[in-house]
Amino acid sequence: MTYRSSNRALEQKAERIFDPLFASAEISAVFSGKALMTRMLQFEWALAAALEKQGVIPQGVAAAIQAVTVDDLNIDEIAQRTADAGNLAIPFVAALTTCVAKERPELSGYVHYGATSQDVLDTSVILQFRDALTHIEDELGAICAELVSLVTRYKSTLLPGRTWLQQGPPVTLGLKLAGWLDALQRHRERAQQALARCCVLQFGGAVGTLAALGDSGPNVTREVARGLELPEPAMPWHTHRDRLAEIAATLGMICGTLGKIGRDMSLLMQSEVAEAFEPVAEGRGGSSTMPHKRNPVASSVLLAAAVRAPGLVATMLASMVQEHERGVGGWQAEWETLPELFRLIGGALRAARQVIGGVTVDAEAMLEHLKMHGGVALSEAVSFALAAKIGKARAHRLLEQVTREAGERGISLRNALLSSAEIMEHLSTDEIDSALDPARYLGSTDVYIAKVLAREGKG
Amino acid sequence: MTYRSSNRALEQKAERIFDPLFASAEISAVFSGKALMTRMLQFEWALAAALEKQGVIPQGVAAAIQAVTVDDLNIDEIAQRTADAGNLAIPFVAALTTCVAKERPELSGYVHYGATSQDVLDTSVILQFRDALTHIEDELGAICAELVSLVTRYKSTLLPGRTWLQQGPPVTLGLKLAGWLDALQRHRERAQQALARCCVLQFGGAVGTLAALGDSGPNVTREVARGLELPEPAMPWHTHRDRLAEIAATLGMICGTLGKIGRDMSLLMQSEVAEAFEPVAEGRGGSSTMPHKRNPVASSVLLAAAVRAPGLVATMLASMVQEHERGVGGWQAEWETLPELFRLIGGALRAARQVIGGVTVDAEAMLEHLKMHGGVALSEAVSFALAAKIGKARAHRLLEQVTREAGERGISLRNALLSSAEIMEHLSTDEIDSALDPARYLGSTDVYIAKVLAREGKG
Amino acid sequence: MTYRSSNRALEQKAERIFDPLFASAEISAVFSGKALMTRMLQFEWALAAALEKQGVIPQGVAAAIQAVTVDDLNIDEIAQRTADAGNLAIPFVAALTTCVAKERPELSGYVHYGATSQDVLDTSVILQFRDALTHIEDELGAICAELVSLVTRYKSTLLPGRTWLQQGPPVTLGLKLAGWLDALQRHRERAQQALARCCVLQFGGAVGTLAALGDSGPNVTREVARGLELPEPAMPWHTHRDRLAEIAATLGMICGTLGKIGRDMSLLMQSEVAEAFEPVAEGRGGSSTMPHKRNPVASSVLLAAAVRAPGLVATMLASMVQEHERGVGGWQAEWETLPELFRLIGGALRAARQVIGGVTVDAEAMLEHLKMHGGVALSEAVSFALAAKIGKARAHRLLEQVTREAGERGISLRNALLSSAEIMEHLSTDEIDSALDPARYLGSTDVYIAKVLAREGKG
Amino acid sequence: MTYRSSNRALEQKAERIFDPLFASAEISAVFSGKALMTRMLQFEWALAAALEKQGVIPQGVAAAIQAVTVDDLNIDEIAQRTADAGNLAIPFVAALTTCVAKERPELSGYVHYGATSQDVLDTSVILQFRDALTHIEDELGAICAELVSLVTRYKSTLLPGRTWLQQGPPVTLGLKLAGWLDALQRHRERAQQALARCCVLQFGGAVGTLAALGDSGPNVTREVARGLELPEPAMPWHTHRDRLAEIAATLGMICGTLGKIGRDMSLLMQSEVAEAFEPVAEGRGGSSTMPHKRNPVASSVLLAAAVRAPGLVATMLASMVQEHERGVGGWQAEWETLPELFRLIGGALRAARQVIGGVTVDAEAMLEHLKMHGGVALSEAVSFALAAKIGKARAHRLLEQVTREAGERGISLRNALLSSAEIMEHLSTDEIDSALDPARYLGSTDVYIAKVLAREGKG
Repeated sequence: MTYRSSNRALEQKAERIFDPLFASAEISAVFSGKALMTRMLQFEWALAAALEKQGVIPQGVAAAIQAVTVDDLNIDEIAQRTADAGNLAIPFVAALTTCVAKERPELSGYVHYGATSQDVLDTSVILQFRDALTHIEDELGAICAELVSLVTRYKSTLLPGRTWLQQGPPVTLGLKLAGWLDALQRHRERAQQALARCCVLQFGGAVGTLAALGDSGPNVTREVARGLELPEPAMPWHTHRDRLAEIAATLGMICGTLGKIGRDMSLLMQSEVAEAFEPVAEGRGGSSTMPHKRNPVASSVLLAAAVRAPGLVATMLASMVQEHERGVGGWQAEWETLPELFRLIGGALRAARQVIGGVTVDAEAMLEHLKMHGGVALSEAVSFALAAKIGKARAHRLLEQVTREAGERGISLRNALLSSAEIMEHLSTDEIDSALDPARYLGSTDVYIAKVLAREGKG
Repeated sequence: MTYRSSNRALEQKAERIFDPLFASAEISAVFSGKALMTRMLQFEWALAAALEKQGVIPQGVAAAIQAVTVDDLNIDEIAQRTADAGNLAIPFVAALTTCVAKERPELSGYVHYGATSQDVLDTSVILQFRDALTHIEDELGAICAELVSLVTRYKSTLLPGRTWLQQGPPVTLGLKLAGWLDALQRHRERAQQALARCCVLQFGGAVGTLAALGDSGPNVTREVARGLELPEPAMPWHTHRDRLAEIAATLGMICGTLGKIGRDMSLLMQSEVAEAFEPVAEGRGGSSTMPHKRNPVASSVLLAAAVRAPGLVATMLASMVQEHERGVGGWQAEWETLPELFRLIGGALRAARQVIGGVTVDAEAMLEHLKMHGGVALSEAVSFALAAKIGKARAHRLLEQVTREAGERGISLRNALLSSAEIMEHLSTDEIDSALDPARYLGSTDVYIAKVLAREGKG
Repeated sequence: MTYRSSNRALEQKAERIFDPLFASAEISAVFSGKALMTRMLQFEWALAAALEKQGVIPQGVAAAIQAVTVDDLNIDEIAQRTADAGNLAIPFVAALTTCVAKERPELSGYVHYGATSQDVLDTSVILQFRDALTHIEDELGAICAELVSLVTRYKSTLLPGRTWLQQGPPVTLGLKLAGWLDALQRHRERAQQALARCCVLQFGGAVGTLAALGDSGPNVTREVARGLELPEPAMPWHTHRDRLAEIAATLGMICGTLGKIGRDMSLLMQSEVAEAFEPVAEGRGGSSTMPHKRNPVASSVLLAAAVRAPGLVATMLASMVQEHERGVGGWQAEWETLPELFRLIGGALRAARQVIGGVTVDAEAMLEHLKMHGGVALSEAVSFALAAKIGKARAHRLLEQVTREAGERGISLRNALLSSAEIMEHLSTDEIDSALDPARYLGSTDVYIAKVLAREGKG
Repeated sequence: MTYRSSNRALEQKAERIFDPLFASAEISAVFSGKALMTRMLQFEWALAAALEKQGVIPQGVAAAIQAVTVDDLNIDEIAQRTADAGNLAIPFVAALTTCVAKERPELSGYVHYGATSQDVLDTSVILQFRDALTHIEDELGAICAELVSLVTRYKSTLLPGRTWLQQGPPVTLGLKLAGWLDALQRHRERAQQALARCCVLQFGGAVGTLAALGDSGPNVTREVARGLELPEPAMPWHTHRDRLAEIAATLGMICGTLGKIGRDMSLLMQSEVAEAFEPVAEGRGGSSTMPHKRNPVASSVLLAAAVRAPGLVATMLASMVQEHERGVGGWQAEWETLPELFRLIGGALRAARQVIGGVTVDAEAMLEHLKMHGGVALSEAVSFALAAKIGKARAHRLLEQVTREAGERGISLRNALLSSAEIMEHLSTDEIDSALDPARYLGSTDVYIAKVLAREGKG
């Protein structure tokens, strides 16, 4: 069992064994080889139908293509021939032509008529992106709906605000969640804009002029677009890839926000914080060696997606530099990159739904932490109460001093304040206690929550 | 003069010696230290004015702040203290407070009242981004206007379409330029959306609750926003940085398109192609050693920006994972990154204006290249003319064979066609000559150009 | 056949349909799910054997594990359970334990004894990386050997040097290829160093102390390392991922050089240059619509890998920030990223072998281009010949003037030189012709080639 | 004071106001404009000296160049002219030539003789990189030395190990610090290798043949290399940039480790953890609004560098694809990117020295956390004690159950264990207490520490 021999006889395809963790079934289905081939068949069918309608090719081609199903194609063989052809469309069109020729040999010459490889490939992935973006919108919608009820439920649940990972004045859990919701609402808007602006037909022929179609180009284009329910662009965009870059950037931004949610959750789940938790499930988040562990598994998926997405977005941006009418290298760099990004976001959205749909909260622990260090998190509140009397700068300096003394003497902030003659000169015990009450130091929290909920029609 | 000693006594600031090449004066001005401090002063002024109006602080603070100019601040010292404070706002506020205290000591305590460092820093950079995005929109507008006239001038200028860097059927220079214009039009739309969605006020106090302002938060916020002519967000966004990521992504996409323009130009300028050239100017693009050289200097700026932008966008996406109410590390990672991206795009837009404003074209060379290899680029045209007679597949195979023979025998495609009995059976000499006329093989070119120009109101 | 319905019943795994194009069979085999599970079995076997030898666990466990083969494991089920467990090792160990329990129930409790999930996963991927790096070294060696013969064959084949994509003085094809070889030699050295420094055992237990093994930790570690033929690190490195980052960076650098080779090849293959070509093969590089096309398919694979690798390397660097003893998010981000990089380099090396092993060269075209523009590429040579007489600056200025005049008058540089009184005052016709002979203007070319070949023992 | 007017009259250079925070004085000095010009002067001097020695140019040129100092050059003007020339070397050489011409007009024509712009620029930045890498090695050495004493001091200081941000079995602070040291030791090795392999002379003339020097190329090269104390490469490397990519990758890896240190520190400094702290200093880490705050300022610098470095490394990798003999775009993309990386690492190393040189530790808090949740972190220890009696699997399951019950009943793990009949059947109270003693559950900790210290000669 030495290592060099053990690979023998293992000449296997590299399965995607991490799909169940990092992807989602829905997105994987959209980007399967079968789904892509189905989209390609659909393009060729729509093209043939349009050409027939415009009288460019004889009747019957579209019907002959429609009779071919993805199961008639040998995906493995097509994939294999891609290595020589340089793109998937060439062996695909050859295989489709063979299928058509079996039934209608006289028509097989009209398959893919006037189109170039990139037309069928680009349009097919656009159709996949439309499916995937629609799914993402649905998922974002479901998460937002879940967040609306969480925000409402926890709108007054106090916990320490935390800046630079240090405790600050109080916030409510509802406010924290409203921040997540607020960002996701913007992402829904961006996803909709990306869908509208970017998911358009690609159809231009060899060099983007549709020269092979003579004067029929515009009419055929209109029909193909109609057949695929895709908007028609002003002109082909074979080497102008900003639309794909926009989709990638939109996904990357969503991953960033989901990563922030994962970071917050994993920090809240820390043993020493333990204020909120991912849902527990059988076999979920355990450790192979530590019986007491409850790992933030879903958060790790969110964080991993946020670590990986930026590099993939960068690749899509870098691949934009494509040569002349159709480029070399940049186009190829897209093929696996954007689907990979969709895969990551599919898994991250699934993980986010798990977290948000099943979060458990320890409100007592939150409150307890607000009292830590003798309420030192409220020092700002006292500072402002004092500032109203003696000016901000002097109040700030005084509080810094009292807070430091409290730390050094190991007493609570309240006791330190009460024992400071200078403080007591300006504030009464009641005023101090009022300032130290976190529930009274929430400022505009409720207003913000109401505004964010209002955008969901739930204000 | 050994190397280890030569650095002595050179303890200098790292000047930005490549600014004239890679940046633009306008963008550099927007992001200068003085401009940032001016924005910060403006925020503090607007804040004080709002607080006064709402009766939170005594009258006179805003006026006292307004009396301070950026020249009253020691930028070098503020920068130096930033190393200890961890952000620029703390020493800035301290310096401003000192200035105010000189004239109105009793009011100095109300400077920056209720705000946190991130409020003034974020809002100030948002003001810079607004300026910069406005400038970029202007530049894009100017480039698009220039492109409109170029597209019109060259709408019928023939040159080979090129795919995979191989000659294909003809296009016109107008179509190629229309492709650039089409992409830039989308970028203008994106830049406008980014400006509208992302350039909003940041104001939330220590943990995003404006707790220090009690019930006055919303009113003060409204006034600050009004004073800075900035939209008001639903809630503070201290750790939700999708807006900045969107700005970055928008810039990155523009850089991608500009890089594509630079790639196209540098390929057209190649000694062996020599179809179009960057403008010549005294001292421009020469070589230190080769007298005949005419280097694509502006293209190199476009390409360099396109190489550098993806990494910077990735950084902005990666920095989105910020902790709780205000993060550690991610926020800091933004400070130089987004300005750097603006700097690059400033220089790239300047270079693009140079190229597009002064491009010289050798239409004869373009036409000559269309005839290269005996017109082999038109083989598709012949193939389709033939396909109308004998079907696409057979026509394609036949043309492949004739084209190969032409290459092997070193004769023109026309001669090879005329000497092929099989071809002549289906096509007349006139039909062949017609198919080989590039001006007749432009398909939808004029329609596309008209559509793109129509969007500029110039169809 | 509307798009929304067509995905139904397609719930398929996302096959890797681009594997034949972008990856290589050898690398895919190393990273298949079966291969990974085999490595994991191997680790558990080596661990059990070591524990038995040290008397920590009863005899027989290793033998029981060795009796389990990868086919006894249900990979799909293990993958599925990973979604809940958060890592592959937990369901893997559970499945292995079940297998062992069937035969030796009393021993099953000693499977994975003392180790943590990350120990088995990290060590197993290290074993994969060792295999893959070894394969890459072999491939690099084969490419270098091929390059040695190409360099030798073409050492005196003249073609224009090209800077900024403009023709400059001559080089030889051998020199250009020697540059490729020189870089690849450095990469071999780096790959060897990465293999030696980075492919080491991971074994530390829950928090990197091997506490569960009491005093036996060091002895067991030594035995496990011996069993797997892996070097033993100074200490566990669960959250110190610089080794993986170094492997990634090494692969990224190789991709960069391969991308440069692809760029050079695709530029040389341009229709207007046509000096060197990728090998022709049946069904290779054709176009679906243009019969005459010969696409740089292998170059596109090289270029695509070079576009994609930087983002993946960046991800590996970004994932280095892992928390405390074992992190959350960063570790997960590695799992698919580094294998993906290996996949890309596997395909790129295959493509590079195709290009380098079968390149065809048109030496006449190269020579023809040297004479383009009337030999203007040799203007530097004339300039230096003249500089020896009248100083460099004056010579440079004079040549610039004559070159410009030659361009404007449409005559060759030679004729322009001969018709310049000022030139002829200092140079004879023979001297001019000598300067214009590219074979005499190669400077140190042969010395460089000899040095690079010498490193392969082929000087 | 409306925003659109406020930028007027601010046409300023963009100062690097964040230099004191993100960079270091030493690195900034190495990369100042003056330092670069000094290096360029040095190259031209060494070149002239070599040419004189080989009799290629007349005596006196080197002396004339040596008489020119950086203060004789107008850096701003040179920078300005770079925008037209496309690189810094052309206006630099022009300015130098003018200086030389003032004193020795007859020699000025021999300045920069035989070299190309890229020779002087590349070699000069290589000299800068050598300085900077040497500085980085020194800094790493100092940090390692500091870590050696910290590791020794805290080798037995107990704190919870933490995995997935959850408490696990104990480690010692010394072990955690030894992990940092172990990684930094590898980085020192990498930095040394990068320095040796990558910091070599660039000298090849226009297209990398040194044709202008005829047969003298090799001899001149040897002398220039000697003059600059730089190794001589096998051949010029104008478009083979793997050396620069390796330097970048090395810096990126170091930033990754420093980011991990920053993450650990900022997590330890959390209000709820508060086990270790960055050093306190006047004006350091305070908050503009929260008096009690103690922000992890140095950690934020470490983290920000780790967020930014990956994108910059990716840019260096992406820029490797350079065309033919000298490229367009890729070269330019390097100029600011690698210095920026050095800048970031300069600041990060400074921050790391602050943290490591002045860390304060609360060993009591660490011990306290080990006892949290009733010692649940030691559950693994009990599990293994039990496993020795009843097998690992059964023990693990039993402990999971007891741990969960302890949590639900709110009692300590010890009490839960003592009240479990099933546990007490196999373990005595003493055995339980022994298992729950963290100091007895450190496994190989001391061995690891000794190994790491041994590499510093401090075992």
